[in-house]
Amino acid sequence: MKKRMNLLLFSGDYDKALAALILANSAKDLNLDVTIFCAFWGLCLIRKPDSIKVEEKSLYEKMFGIMTPKGPDELPLSKMNFAGIGKKMLTEMMEEDDAPPLSAFLKGARKKDVKFYACKLSVEVMGLTQDELIEEAIIADSTTYLKDALDSDIQLFI
Amino acid sequence: MKKRMNLLLFSGDYDKALAALILANSAKDLNLDVTIFCAFWGLCLIRKPDSIKVEEKSLYEKMFGIMTPKGPDELPLSKMNFAGIGKKMLTEMMEEDDAPPLSAFLKGARKKDVKFYACKLSVEVMGLTQDELIEEAIIADSTTYLKDALDSDIQLFI
Amino acid sequence: MKKRMNLLLFSGDYDKALAALILANSAKDLNLDVTIFCAFWGLCLIRKPDSIKVEEKSLYEKMFGIMTPKGPDELPLSKMNFAGIGKKMLTEMMEEDDAPPLSAFLKGARKKDVKFYACKLSVEVMGLTQDELIEEAIIADSTTYLKDALDSDIQLFI
Repeated sequence: MKKRMNLLLFSGDYDKALAALILANSAKDLNLDVTIFCAFWGLCLIRKPDSIKVEEKSLYEKMFGIMTPKGPDELPLSKMNFAGIGKKMLTEMMEEDDAPPLSAFLKGARKKDVKFYACKLSVEVMGLTQDELIEEAIIADSTTYLKDALDSDIQLFI
Repeated sequence: MKKRMNLLLFSGDYDKALAALILANSAKDLNLDVTIFCAFWGLCLIRKPDSIKVEEKSLYEKMFGIMTPKGPDELPLSKMNFAGIGKKMLTEMMEEDDAPPLSAFLKGARKKDVKFYACKLSVEVMGLTQDELIEEAIIADSTTYLKDALDSDIQLFI
Repeated sequence: MKKRMNLLLFSGDYDKALAALILANSAKDLNLDVTIFCAFWGLCLIRKPDSIKVEEKSLYEKMFGIMTPKGPDELPLSKMNFAGIGKKMLTEMMEEDDAPPLSAFLKGARKKDVKFYACKLSVEVMGLTQDELIEEAIIADSTTYLKDALDSDIQLFI
């Protein structure tokens, strides 16, 4: 039977999402099944950069939608972000070393069929819709997460 | 044999405690045994809101006790807290969606017999006493944590 | 067969590194094999306090090297650091309770043969060299991490 890894991506930080996606891509290369369950701030990673349907949202949902990052490029660093300076420094250091940026790792993970779940409760509270997320994201509840995690050989909360 | 989930709640953030308790409640509904080992800032979740015995404490312990949150309602957001504005926004968005607040999830977990451990070293360093924690919290050391985690099917550090 | 614990230390915070090392030392006392894979900010824990070879580094790498903590004593708190005041308070509270500081737990873990890996990609991006890390740190990639984690009974992302 294939080994499996399950990541609960709670964080919306650039560096932590990078860690999650590097693990996901490496695990796929080792022929593991990989699930990333995006909850709360972690949903920011799988938001489409350019589609907010503001009309149907409450005031808070609109504000929250505008204040939170949309897609991989907008995520801040978890430490030393310094209004984006620290993040720019990191991404240029990655470029110097020919390490691809977060968006490339996300593309890779999608190509390699990493399964992306979007936490139902988080999606509802934040007022997001399926259209605002990457196409293959499946909206799923905590029971779905737990069943997947129970069947996995590695489970991490990131 | 019953499946088990073990959560090490290190964080004292409202959103992360929410994630832990939602997982704990869902796991109980799936008939899993659930342990939450509260360490460091995570102890703030299981502090009683209204009992500080300041007399027996050192100056640092008194200061620390006053500066740290007491119980679920006082926990800040891990991101965008903005001196409480972000958290108020989130809790109102949860209300709009009929999602219960953190304190309700804590009540649920206690009713469903989630096992709460309080990290002995953290309790001692912070100068907390058993009386300042919810009744069922058992003060336990890292060895107790490790044995419980080894017997568990899911272990997460939150 | 010996039980194993694998910790992915991503955080460079004093309190989280403390949690990781307390778990590592306790697990060793229970006769478990323990691996700590230090990635990103987690590398700061295993940096030598006094060896930066600035000559071979790019400008960004030099800046990053100066701005990030060098070794256990320089790590900040994850919360309430207040420019070091919160951390000083915590370390004095630990002293009052005869709890050893982080550096003592690191020494203990090294003596007990906890295996330290340094994430290859992080080391390269940050421009660190083997000489700047504690002697026994082995530079290893995410595949090495995953294989170790798959063989472990407890895996945590800290």
